[in-house]
Amino acid sequence: MDAQLDSLKLDSNGLIPAIVQDADNGQILMMAWMNRAALDKTIETGTVHTYSRSRGRLAQKGESSGHLQHVVRILTDCDRDVILIQAKQDVAACHEGYRSCFYRQYQPEKGDWKIIAEKVFDPGKVYHK
Amino acid sequence: MDAQLDSLKLDSNGLIPAIVQDADNGQILMMAWMNRAALDKTIETGTVHTYSRSRGRLAQKGESSGHLQHVVRILTDCDRDVILIQAKQDVAACHEGYRSCFYRQYQPEKGDWKIIAEKVFDPGKVYHK
Repeated sequence: MDAQLDSLKLDSNGLIPAIVQDADNGQILMMAWMNRAALDKTIETGTVHTYSRSRGRLAQKGESSGHLQHVVRILTDCDRDVILIQAKQDVAACHEGYRSCFYRQYQPEKGDWKIIAEKVFDPGKVYHK
Repeated sequence: MDAQLDSLKLDSNGLIPAIVQDADNGQILMMAWMNRAALDKTIETGTVHTYSRSRGRLAQKGESSGHLQHVVRILTDCDRDVILIQAKQDVAACHEGYRSCFYRQYQPEKGDWKIIAEKVFDPGKVYHK
């Protein structure tokens, strides 16, 4: 899209990690991967697009669920090898039904992971219409 | 350290991305990489340790500057392939002198990156004593 994006450092697969953070309350919603096309599409449309490594293609975040992420601002880090997107989240980010994908907290005393969030939608209803 | 950490999905290089977020105000401080040893050391000591890909070794975050990150809680995401550490940051996270490594914001109208933060320490004084 423009030359300044060329200064970003993509990895050997042409990908860059993209953290998505709730622009309103700072909650970290997810981390995904972008290629250059996903980044261009994100800027062009104002909604987050990612490169799905499992599906091997560009995807609009929320294309199945309708739970889009609306870009407020885009930042990069000192090494220009990570993208941070602050966004307005429709409904929820996680396909498991949680607002954020980071819903498991490590419990050092038990050496276990505990679910610390409540689901905000029912994935069975959203993904299997 | 314990079996539940074995459920984390490391990449083909044995690494997992670790986002570090300020536990007090939600600011995203940095993203680094951990191997299993870095994660174990982080849990054991309560201070963030990473695997430095450029130096090819385990490193305590802030070992040169003294700007340690004190772990408050550790989370993982739905796919268990990203770690989120909420921490108390001593001084600043970025070796460039900024509180957060994410100090550059994309300016869509100019196609440019703008520095949006002020330095909180002088790297020349901290790293070249």
